[in-house]
Amino acid sequence: MKNHVYKIIELTGTSTTSIEDAVDTAIERAHKTLKHLGWFQVIETRGSIDKGKVQHWQVTLKVGFTLEG
Amino acid sequence: MKNHVYKIIELTGTSTTSIEDAVDTAIERAHKTLKHLGWFQVIETRGSIDKGKVQHWQVTLKVGFTLEG
Amino acid sequence: MKNHVYKIIELTGTSTTSIEDAVDTAIERAHKTLKHLGWFQVIETRGSIDKGKVQHWQVTLKVGFTLEG
Amino acid sequence: MKNHVYKIIELTGTSTTSIEDAVDTAIERAHKTLKHLGWFQVIETRGSIDKGKVQHWQVTLKVGFTLEG
Amino acid sequence: MKNHVYKIIELTGTSTTSIEDAVDTAIERAHKTLKHLGWFQVIETRGSIDKGKVQHWQVTLKVGFTLEG
Amino acid sequence: MKNHVYKIIELTGTSTTSIEDAVDTAIERAHKTLKHLGWFQVIETRGSIDKGKVQHWQVTLKVGFTLEG
Amino acid sequence: MKNHVYKIIELTGTSTTSIEDAVDTAIERAHKTLKHLGWFQVIETRGSIDKGKVQHWQVTLKVGFTLEG
Amino acid sequence: MKNHVYKIIELTGTSTTSIEDAVDTAIERAHKTLKHLGWFQVIETRGSIDKGKVQHWQVTLKVGFTLEG
Amino acid sequence: MKNHVYKIIELTGTSTTSIEDAVDTAIERAHKTLKHLGWFQVIETRGSIDKGKVQHWQVTLKVGFTLEG
Amino acid sequence: MKNHVYKIIELTGTSTTSIEDAVDTAIERAHKTLKHLGWFQVIETRGSIDKGKVQHWQVTLKVGFTLEG
Amino acid sequence: MKNHVYKIIELTGTSTTSIEDAVDTAIERAHKTLKHLGWFQVIETRGSIDKGKVQHWQVTLKVGFTLEG
Amino acid sequence: MKNHVYKIIELTGTSTTSIEDAVDTAIERAHKTLKHLGWFQVIETRGSIDKGKVQHWQVTLKVGFTLEG
Repeated sequence: MKNHVYKIIELTGTSTTSIEDAVDTAIERAHKTLKHLGWFQVIETRGSIDKGKVQHWQVTLKVGFTLEG
Repeated sequence: MKNHVYKIIELTGTSTTSIEDAVDTAIERAHKTLKHLGWFQVIETRGSIDKGKVQHWQVTLKVGFTLEG
Repeated sequence: MKNHVYKIIELTGTSTTSIEDAVDTAIERAHKTLKHLGWFQVIETRGSIDKGKVQHWQVTLKVGFTLEG
Repeated sequence: MKNHVYKIIELTGTSTTSIEDAVDTAIERAHKTLKHLGWFQVIETRGSIDKGKVQHWQVTLKVGFTLEG
Repeated sequence: MKNHVYKIIELTGTSTTSIEDAVDTAIERAHKTLKHLGWFQVIETRGSIDKGKVQHWQVTLKVGFTLEG
Repeated sequence: MKNHVYKIIELTGTSTTSIEDAVDTAIERAHKTLKHLGWFQVIETRGSIDKGKVQHWQVTLKVGFTLEG
Repeated sequence: MKNHVYKIIELTGTSTTSIEDAVDTAIERAHKTLKHLGWFQVIETRGSIDKGKVQHWQVTLKVGFTLEG
Repeated sequence: MKNHVYKIIELTGTSTTSIEDAVDTAIERAHKTLKHLGWFQVIETRGSIDKGKVQHWQVTLKVGFTLEG
Repeated sequence: MKNHVYKIIELTGTSTTSIEDAVDTAIERAHKTLKHLGWFQVIETRGSIDKGKVQHWQVTLKVGFTLEG
Repeated sequence: MKNHVYKIIELTGTSTTSIEDAVDTAIERAHKTLKHLGWFQVIETRGSIDKGKVQHWQVTLKVGFTLEG
Repeated sequence: MKNHVYKIIELTGTSTTSIEDAVDTAIERAHKTLKHLGWFQVIETRGSIDKGKVQHWQVTLKVGFTLEG
Repeated sequence: MKNHVYKIIELTGTSTTSIEDAVDTAIERAHKTLKHLGWFQVIETRGSIDKGKVQHWQVTLKVGFTLEG
């Protein structure tokens, strides 16, 4: 059985609506240049505040993908 | 006043829609066999990716419940 | 260029519906007495359980704001 | 020499008097159903407050015990 | 059901006798100016030494209290 | 698509020969009573020493398995 | 011997020149409203970048001070 | 004396036989496209289980290499 | 003003009675060979269990002392 | 409002003079190939010693930059 | 029952072959000057790389030993 | 190739002027009794405050050195 190697990169996705949407934003962007994305892990959830409201959710994730041979 | 003892178990719930739904999934399953569930704490939020989209949210939580006498 | 100083406080917001709503609840309350709120970071996500359902989401966050001169 | 396997569970013991007593409470309860308890590690020390006094010490511990063959 | 907000502050209580007494010292002092104290968590246990004896136990805790509307 | 729930338990396997063997020991023992073991994560690697030699490798792992419906 | 109580707050000081200057900035500001500052601990060192140069050093610290009786 | 700059990437190597082999797998793959690899640090050791046996060791490492001028 | 240097060592004290007593045991032993002990920090609180009772409290601490010129 | 995505890379800068200079070295090197660098966070401060003197400060940082569309 | 005191030191062992061998190297060296070594805990696993191969495994461990009366 | 063993000790250096100077102070003192110092890692940066000014920077570091055969 072949031994795979994966690379893990760190991204911050942002969204005005939700944590899930910020994750989706980051993964969709990564998918433009990296095929074989396999999993992610949320590292940090932050956000900016404007006039007492959350302005942007900022979710930092690690994203893993298969390195081809 | 009686001194209670609680047990804490670790579960991973999954969902195709949201972090909250993954938590609900885990707690509902635990409730089938454990009464007296009292609280939970999110330990890790991960997920699987398929074709550049989140396929499953995987949320690991600690769940605490009262041990009877 | 003036060197700013920020203060960071810790709050727990609660909600019966979602993590995002619990964060909003905390920030709206802080905004009543503190102007210049600038950012937040989620520190912990917990909750209470009643009859096998999440009763309250309890999200602890650090909130940063500008200290005026 | 035989290779042992140990299982580790997480418990929260409570007490109105001291941290040590909360630990004792948890271990005595675990001993009712698990023989071969061998060691513990304190993970977290919390408590509830009522009218400016500690009401309950809540000490979370990991407890290890030998799994029989 | 109303969504509460809690504030969490960090205090160090000291005592010449025990960890529990250092916690009590901090909570009693906080209670003078803050009503509605609800819970605490021990963050760090340190101490000063004089002539080979513990001189002061220094226990740092987070203390949570309800923010009124 | 069905949402799975996984349970995670903590075990310490021991071995006189290697870290890998200590992990194998723990997983083989768990497999006796739990089907559907899916993954593990090494949490801590310790050991006992006798006369300047490693006597036992003690490897603590989290092991995850599928909870059936 | 009297048992003291200390309060610990979290501040971020900024500076265009150095980490030490950012710490000084935070402590000088705190000293305007709080007497009896006793110690600090650096929690995080971050910064903003503009055109490939550090624009502001942002140093987050915990600052402890004596609570009077 | 010239001030070097190093870049650090995160990789997961896998192996059916040992932790060391999983590390070797990751480093050999990285070496195909990056010269000047200098050091690594093991971040996490996980694995997949099939029928009560370790199927793949999955070792995540940080790998550092010199960035040329 | 002279710049002092401190050395920090790690000790585990044990006691059959309490956490405080285990700390005292360690500090008294260290004091036999090291003068100028100044402070300690509790790093870990563990213990051994025999027949469902705590047999020994094992408290690991860092102890700091002044290095003379 | 557009949702941005940021990428975060890890670098170690070195300097014979100071922590700040090591950070500058890393950021200047990154700026050669990456525009839109926005912020950094110091992760680790190490160094090499030669003949009882610091030879090189080695500061590891995370550096974030905007990923264009 | 006598209350023992243990001292814990930190060592890095190296090996060109395996993690276990690096641990053995460190413990054998410690045993030359310290009798009563009792246990160890692996703190960090790193290594140096030369021409795309692991050159040295560098394993940092804490080693505990009994302090005689 | 010979397998080296390194010992790691923990020191706190102090300085009235800067973090770098506190590190230098600790390393120069260690060099008086230990040859072969090879590297250090900053563990904690604290300080004492007097009248709203930093009085002493207190930097705790781990320092590694080669143990001779």
